[in-house]
Order: sequence, then C-alpha cells, then structure tokens
Amino acid sequence: MKKVLILIGKSFEDRELIYPYYRFQEDGYGVEVVGSSAKTTYIGLHGMPWETDVGPNDVKVDDYEAFVIVGGHAPDKMRQDPALVKIVKDAFDTGKVVGAICHGPQLLIEADVLRGRKATCYKAIVTDVKNAGAVFEDKQVVVDGNLVTSQHPRDLPVFVKSMLELLE
Amino acid sequence: MKKVLILIGKSFEDRELIYPYYRFQEDGYGVEVVGSSAKTTYIGLHGMPWETDVGPNDVKVDDYEAFVIVGGHAPDKMRQDPALVKIVKDAFDTGKVVGAICHGPQLLIEADVLRGRKATCYKAIVTDVKNAGAVFEDKQVVVDGNLVTSQHPRDLPVFVKSMLELLE
Repeated sequence: MKKVLILIGKSFEDRELIYPYYRFQEDGYGVEVVGSSAKTTYIGLHGMPWETDVGPNDVKVDDYEAFVIVGGHAPDKMRQDPALVKIVKDAFDTGKVVGAICHGPQLLIEADVLRGRKATCYKAIVTDVKNAGAVFEDKQVVVDGNLVTSQHPRDLPVFVKSMLELLE
Repeated sequence: MKKVLILIGKSFEDRELIYPYYRFQEDGYGVEVVGSSAKTTYIGLHGMPWETDVGPNDVKVDDYEAFVIVGGHAPDKMRQDPALVKIVKDAFDTGKVVGAICHGPQLLIEADVLRGRKATCYKAIVTDVKNAGAVFEDKQVVVDGNLVTSQHPRDLPVFVKSMLELLE
C-alpha cells in the first residue's frame, strides 16, 4: 500500500492534521503520523488529542510517497528535533512530494531546503522564509517541483488537491 | 455555485465537521454551516470552536445539493430544535442527498425518515435506529437511495466519498 507520513508535534493545528489524514485515505493511501516519539499523544492548538503511530527511528523515507508538515505551534517544536529535520532533508534529497502549510515551512527552513524555491507560508514567518532563500509568493498554494506550500487552514482543499495531483 | 449544508450544535464531533467542510470545497461546492442560530460559535467535543454561517430561518432547502449531519453530542441538541428537524424532513421530501455519521442518525429518527431504510450509526444508538424502523447494517457506510450513514470518525473517507458519488 502506498503511504503518506504526517509530521506533528505539541500544539499542531488540528484542521491541518485532520483534513490530510482522512483525505489521503480516501484516495487509498495508508496514512501514518510521526512525532518526536512513537505512541505519544499530542494535543492540538484547539484541543484535539492525537496519538503518533511511529517515531523518527521507525521511519524509512523510501516507504512513503509524500510527507505533510502540519502547522500551528508544532513546527516550532519539531524544528528542534534533529531526527524530524533529517526526515524532511531525506524526503527532499530523494524527490518525494512534500507539503507544508501555515507554520510548517519552519521545518523546511531548518532543513535548509528552501534556497531558490518558490514557496508560501503563514504571514508571521514570511521574513524567515525569505531569509532562508525562498522566493515568497503570496498565494493560497504554491507548487514548485515536488514542494507544495500553503498559508492557512482555509487553503486545505487546494493544498491537499495539489499534493494529490503531483502524486498521480 | 452548488452548495452543501452542514448541521452542527454544541459538542459536535470536531473531525466529522472538519473533514466534509473542506472535502466538499475541494470538489467545488460552497459549504455553509447551520446551527440553531446564525453567527453562533459552538465548541466541538474536542475543543474546536466553529461559528455557524446561517440559522434555520435563512435556509432554503432547495438551495443545497446535500446535507451533512455531524455526530458527537450535537445531534442530541439538534433534535430538540424543530426548525433543524424540519430542514432534515424537507431535505428527504425533496430527494436531496443526506449524510449522517456517528450520532447523526438521532436527527433522522426525530424527523421520522428512517422507516424501511437501510442505515448504520454509532453503536450506542443502534437500538434507537432499529426502533425508528430502519434496517440496521453493521458496516462502515450504508447507502440507501439518497441516504448515506456511517458509524465513526474513522469512516469519514468512505462516508464523504459515498456522498460525492451520489452527487455526480
């Protein structure tokens, strides 16, 4: 079964986990959720609890077709975990589809994969994204090669649709 | 624009609102959320706040292609509001696609639209659904004519997909 990995941490944006979690399943993907440790429950910004399926050491990047970096305050936590940063780096190095929404690009900055890439993000981190070498575009969704970025939960429909189109 | 109406109330199941809310948008539908009053914020079972777009008096059933009844504790509240029950009755009478998940069928019971219909629901209310005249089936999703029912948030992918297929 084709698989998708969703990256979360403490105070993830609830909707940004929930929508891709079910949407990729609808198209026949197995979806797994990773955090800094396996079988750990993180609480979303709005209160939704979610238990991770796997920890970083369980992840073989080649086993997944795509990676989703959820926003909220979680990326601020995830970027401090070198094992999660390495997953993102490896996903880029092997040409996997990577989606990041809202504050999700903070993890892309930490993995140093934004140089010369077109991308968007939540308004608070636009300067950081530019300083990391990205060409910022103020759009609901930006697709550059295998990288898909969006700004806000309201962009979820076009964000996930764009990822699915890359995977076709 | 084709529209879908989602029915919620206090303590709605967060995921059961969030998934259809974005999924129907992905397929080009305008999605509106109705509760007992317009511009009112209800808090989900897991803490997600959501403001309604419209109240029952703003709703013309003919303006919508489909109706989604969200589960959680909300249906126990919604069934006590005759204006919301009437929306469901009218949706049935005019042959609209109606989906109900989890405790959502409580609102179908109150509208007395289950007689002779195949349906499923959350395990707690199986007896009520049978007593209301439905032919209960223990499946993730049951489609009978224009009625789509499911049991649990884990069924969301097939629940919404089944509704979309009816609308094609």
